[in-house]
Amino acid sequence: MDKYLEDLIEQSEKRIVFLILDGLGGLPLERGGKTELESAATPNLDALAADSECGLHQPIGFGVTPGSAPGHFALFGYQPTDYPIGRGVVAAMGIGFPMKAGDVAARMNFASRDEQGNITDRRAGRIPTDECAGLCELLNQVAISGVEIFIKPVQDYRAVVIFRGEGLSDQVADTDPQKVGVKALDPKALSAAGKKTAGIVKEFISQSLEILKNEKPANALLMRGFAELPHIPSMPELFGLKPLALAVYPDYKGISRLLGMQVIENLSGLDDQLDALKSYWQNFDFFFIHHKYTDSKGEDGNFKGKVAEIEKVDAIVPKILEMKPDVLVVTGDHSTPALLKAHSSHPVPFLIHTPLVSLTRSGGAKEFGERACAGDVWGVIEGTNLIRIALGYAGKLKKYGA
Amino acid sequence: MDKYLEDLIEQSEKRIVFLILDGLGGLPLERGGKTELESAATPNLDALAADSECGLHQPIGFGVTPGSAPGHFALFGYQPTDYPIGRGVVAAMGIGFPMKAGDVAARMNFASRDEQGNITDRRAGRIPTDECAGLCELLNQVAISGVEIFIKPVQDYRAVVIFRGEGLSDQVADTDPQKVGVKALDPKALSAAGKKTAGIVKEFISQSLEILKNEKPANALLMRGFAELPHIPSMPELFGLKPLALAVYPDYKGISRLLGMQVIENLSGLDDQLDALKSYWQNFDFFFIHHKYTDSKGEDGNFKGKVAEIEKVDAIVPKILEMKPDVLVVTGDHSTPALLKAHSSHPVPFLIHTPLVSLTRSGGAKEFGERACAGDVWGVIEGTNLIRIALGYAGKLKKYGA
Repeated sequence: MDKYLEDLIEQSEKRIVFLILDGLGGLPLERGGKTELESAATPNLDALAADSECGLHQPIGFGVTPGSAPGHFALFGYQPTDYPIGRGVVAAMGIGFPMKAGDVAARMNFASRDEQGNITDRRAGRIPTDECAGLCELLNQVAISGVEIFIKPVQDYRAVVIFRGEGLSDQVADTDPQKVGVKALDPKALSAAGKKTAGIVKEFISQSLEILKNEKPANALLMRGFAELPHIPSMPELFGLKPLALAVYPDYKGISRLLGMQVIENLSGLDDQLDALKSYWQNFDFFFIHHKYTDSKGEDGNFKGKVAEIEKVDAIVPKILEMKPDVLVVTGDHSTPALLKAHSSHPVPFLIHTPLVSLTRSGGAKEFGERACAGDVWGVIEGTNLIRIALGYAGKLKKYGA
Repeated sequence: MDKYLEDLIEQSEKRIVFLILDGLGGLPLERGGKTELESAATPNLDALAADSECGLHQPIGFGVTPGSAPGHFALFGYQPTDYPIGRGVVAAMGIGFPMKAGDVAARMNFASRDEQGNITDRRAGRIPTDECAGLCELLNQVAISGVEIFIKPVQDYRAVVIFRGEGLSDQVADTDPQKVGVKALDPKALSAAGKKTAGIVKEFISQSLEILKNEKPANALLMRGFAELPHIPSMPELFGLKPLALAVYPDYKGISRLLGMQVIENLSGLDDQLDALKSYWQNFDFFFIHHKYTDSKGEDGNFKGKVAEIEKVDAIVPKILEMKPDVLVVTGDHSTPALLKAHSSHPVPFLIHTPLVSLTRSGGAKEFGERACAGDVWGVIEGTNLIRIALGYAGKLKKYGA
């Protein structure tokens, strides 16, 4: 964040709520049709939109399709491209593994090799996830003194390894040769700082190959994307906020922790999330409520399912408003049109509601939907601005200059 | 400004007028109501808006509430956070003192001290401004060879001191101990560059204390915020413009001088400003017309008063159009909703009128108002873009590249 903004931060009792429908933005299934959000029966969000300042945002940059982690970084005011996160960390966050400062994570693929040690299949015949999980269990036998090693399945032949110990570094080269018919590469140190870790990784691979030697087809492994947790200033540091995350999925709890939010565990859905919102209302001043399933249904190409998920979130909006947040932002971290079965670069609708705004600039958006938001106050803005606007309207930014 | 833009500057006979209603943006007093600008009867601005490209701007950044000086910096194309202005300079500009390059200004508070020299009141019982002015007069007796010293009242116990001479520097520490019961601090040099100035300030304080010794309650003074005029490239340098400021209030004349504008003195209101516009039309190609009272009424919480001030400005619009400016921009430096009695972070409506625009993009905004502007061409943009757009439409920026 810009240094000058940090100097303007003023703590206050005002409360901000970010209600995030993952992958909210959508597309119509046919020309002239309605998007998922436009199709959904959302009486509460529609009424709120008419009482809010609306617009569309591009989380990372114009034209860019966000992954979930960077999409959320942007929502919380962090330009994701300023905080690149290595592949290993992304994998660890993706399974909700709670990395600590100093940990080094790497992606690991199970692979196949012949008797000469040459790689014959870089994906071990795409073994299913449960087989991958079993192999990860086996590898827990690996023991290296002074280092804790966590080996976790991700999906199919993909796993993630996290090394924890003193003096580790991500300065280690990939072992994946990126082709078959050759041996896996050595985990070379990329700088002096990486020497110790490279040695540990070499030992890890050596012990693992011994354990896997009779497995078929997964008798080898390839590692890449060694990465440490980046140093990211926390939301309390940057914004003076006391932020609380109310998320069900591990990935989003991981992101929240990374940004210095408190995380409530064992929430199973919107009812739990609402209960926690009420319980902790007095103790925090920023609340992140995350709903995953809009994205999941979009990824599945399930238009009606996504519509239904949006309607579930609509139903809880009155209960959030009962808490009288000073600023309520409703939006998504990116678009996931069911039509595309994938994240997309389409701008994401948002609404910013405050009691003051409802006196004021409202009236443009007749409903909460892509087209209605496009015609309202904010036009298309970069996503990192949302929290800035919210802080301004919540009176958490002092006047700049006399 | 971006270096590449400087290279595109092309001088021409085309004339740009910025008509600035200070604190223009507003809020309705009640839900569903109209803002000050929307409530005002502004037939001329409404007709002009329908013939213009409209939008909203955030002068400093999304969510940021601008002070008046940085708000104007942004209007004139200077990102305010790139040109931070020290407290002493702000104070000097605030009373319209014409600082020169190399001057050092500091805030000075009259204070009270006991016989031991310990500060007993950091504000000298909040003496009224006229008493402050009398004391400043007295201090004109201070004489230090090689330095000119200007001592000017600001408000209540607050004054400003400007040192003018060779080799001065703002590297001098505050003397205000920020608490009572202790002596004022020495004006220490903060670096080698500040040594000479620190000595001068020490001598200034010593002579002043002798002059004030029998005064009650103001027998002491505290200094802080030593600041030099920042180096700011002038509008003629940056934009190749010949700019003229037609402002009534000293603060805005000060800002205009700082940016290299010519300033016409002794204007008492809109009629004078219009007369001066006509008189100097042939001699300049950028005209800044400033109306303060929209902001003043907003700060007072006087909704109707602000409406009336907007209507006064509306009445002079036809006379500005008679001059046939090539580009006319009408906007504010920030919002000052009467509802809030303060500057706010709400985006500020603007219109950009040119004969060419009226052939083209017009027709979006049916009136000049927050909501109408929100629905027009430009959406919400950062304030420093306005002068760039105006230069472009005035043909004062060459084509970039072949």
